[in-house]
Amino acid sequence: MDEGVGQPEGSSERRDPLERVRTSFERQGLMRLLGARVLEVGEGSCTIEVPFSDEVTQQERYFHGAVIGAVGDNAGGYAALTLAPPDREVLTVEYKVNFLAPAFGEKLVARGEVVTAGRRLFVCKADVSAVGGNGERICATVLQTVSLSPITARTSR
Amino acid sequence: MDEGVGQPEGSSERRDPLERVRTSFERQGLMRLLGARVLEVGEGSCTIEVPFSDEVTQQERYFHGAVIGAVGDNAGGYAALTLAPPDREVLTVEYKVNFLAPAFGEKLVARGEVVTAGRRLFVCKADVSAVGGNGERICATVLQTVSLSPITARTSR
Amino acid sequence: MDEGVGQPEGSSERRDPLERVRTSFERQGLMRLLGARVLEVGEGSCTIEVPFSDEVTQQERYFHGAVIGAVGDNAGGYAALTLAPPDREVLTVEYKVNFLAPAFGEKLVARGEVVTAGRRLFVCKADVSAVGGNGERICATVLQTVSLSPITARTSR
Amino acid sequence: MDEGVGQPEGSSERRDPLERVRTSFERQGLMRLLGARVLEVGEGSCTIEVPFSDEVTQQERYFHGAVIGAVGDNAGGYAALTLAPPDREVLTVEYKVNFLAPAFGEKLVARGEVVTAGRRLFVCKADVSAVGGNGERICATVLQTVSLSPITARTSR
Repeated sequence: MDEGVGQPEGSSERRDPLERVRTSFERQGLMRLLGARVLEVGEGSCTIEVPFSDEVTQQERYFHGAVIGAVGDNAGGYAALTLAPPDREVLTVEYKVNFLAPAFGEKLVARGEVVTAGRRLFVCKADVSAVGGNGERICATVLQTVSLSPITARTSR
Repeated sequence: MDEGVGQPEGSSERRDPLERVRTSFERQGLMRLLGARVLEVGEGSCTIEVPFSDEVTQQERYFHGAVIGAVGDNAGGYAALTLAPPDREVLTVEYKVNFLAPAFGEKLVARGEVVTAGRRLFVCKADVSAVGGNGERICATVLQTVSLSPITARTSR
Repeated sequence: MDEGVGQPEGSSERRDPLERVRTSFERQGLMRLLGARVLEVGEGSCTIEVPFSDEVTQQERYFHGAVIGAVGDNAGGYAALTLAPPDREVLTVEYKVNFLAPAFGEKLVARGEVVTAGRRLFVCKADVSAVGGNGERICATVLQTVSLSPITARTSR
Repeated sequence: MDEGVGQPEGSSERRDPLERVRTSFERQGLMRLLGARVLEVGEGSCTIEVPFSDEVTQQERYFHGAVIGAVGDNAGGYAALTLAPPDREVLTVEYKVNFLAPAFGEKLVARGEVVTAGRRLFVCKADVSAVGGNGERICATVLQTVSLSPITARTSR
């Protein structure tokens, strides 16, 4: 399984969800590269935005589907992280993304939330919208399975 | 539906698949950003590679799942493009990615192929492997639906 | 592509959605076999229920995942049919189902709705709940792509 | 998570995979209802067939997509069961099915196999074909995540 989206520092105390998400987020090279930032974090929810730039487009100057999938996946994964025990990390097992409309605008906004939280597996979803002069339009929806794993030396360094 | 992965120049002649894929590929800001390149193109298949860099990692220095999903999606979409009539473009309707193992190594290699080619919809799949000193290891598999659409002024410019 | 979920009788008038759904539904051998019935039909929505019986279980006497997937798929597909032009039929291109909790109770209720309606492709979703003495509990969620196709002699007989 | 596809009898010995699969299979009301039977079981693979009957059709007398999904899901799940420790049961976490062609013929044959076997999660796939006078034609492909869980009193009775 792949793609850890978070690992607390080994403490067993409950940490502030926003801080926990941001600490993990800042260590993701890809999110930096995309200029993504965490807008909002709640218990079981997370909102991420990505500003438009030439780097995040496909050949038609729309936001690239891969970027849409990436922020949707991340928004769902970080939503799960807000509910995970401090000694657990969150890994994406799989996700499916349906593209609903071309994504054109000033930024992408991905809103992730936990659908069900099990002991080891969470199911999450995320809607991704393009926001521009004409308002906001949903452009993709993501349905995702994430797993909670013990943080190991390998993953927590 | 989203994410055009290719559009020929309005000619009705069959174009060289490799040239067709590369022309489209070079216009994708994201693929440039990732340093991705097309390795091989056949009738109904396409192989893409992405070298390791700090920009394509998640917080554990593995390849980011979003990058894995992106190259898998692209490999499948470009495999479809090789079989598309010259006046059609290929759009990803949806894809699902299962992460199979952590992706660590010098590069990612995504091999896409067409499973079935309908009149309007293709089903494609792609396997993504991490290649390093220890050989090659499959790290994700993608199952994808793409649609063929007439190239419009909006999409072909 | 497979699994037509509806075809009107060749008339080009707008038909009553409930009648349209029921006419198609009654012709499905599998739905009869499961004892399924259409509870409610709206513009872009459809609710189906399946009573508990020994025939719809897996080895643990829970509702079988296949039955859950089937009614979820059907609820989404019929939701699409309510918005389809009278000369079009609805076919499921693909669906994904996440199982959220064991499904035990007196009946299954699947609520499907259209997420986005395109010219040729719809994206739909459905939630499936188990209903029993302890109330209602969501047990699965479905995300689905359906296509609209002209009704042909082959499919409309 | 839902849909157990198998549970051994509490013994810790490795049991014959074919026997293990058949024991579980026979307890599935739905599989009996469909007339399904296990054709072949290997280490990490399983083949199931379903004969044509009026009960397994949709409104066009093709095999119903739900039946196709069900046997694909089961073929993958039972493939996983062949590799599961005797004290574990196999539950489907989620699956995605793409329908590739109308399924018409004398029987459906679903061939499931394990793609990767983790400690707690397996990824499996299955191809489902329709077999008739004109030979065999693949009509659907399934990509699936299953989990291994300890057999509990609740599930093993």
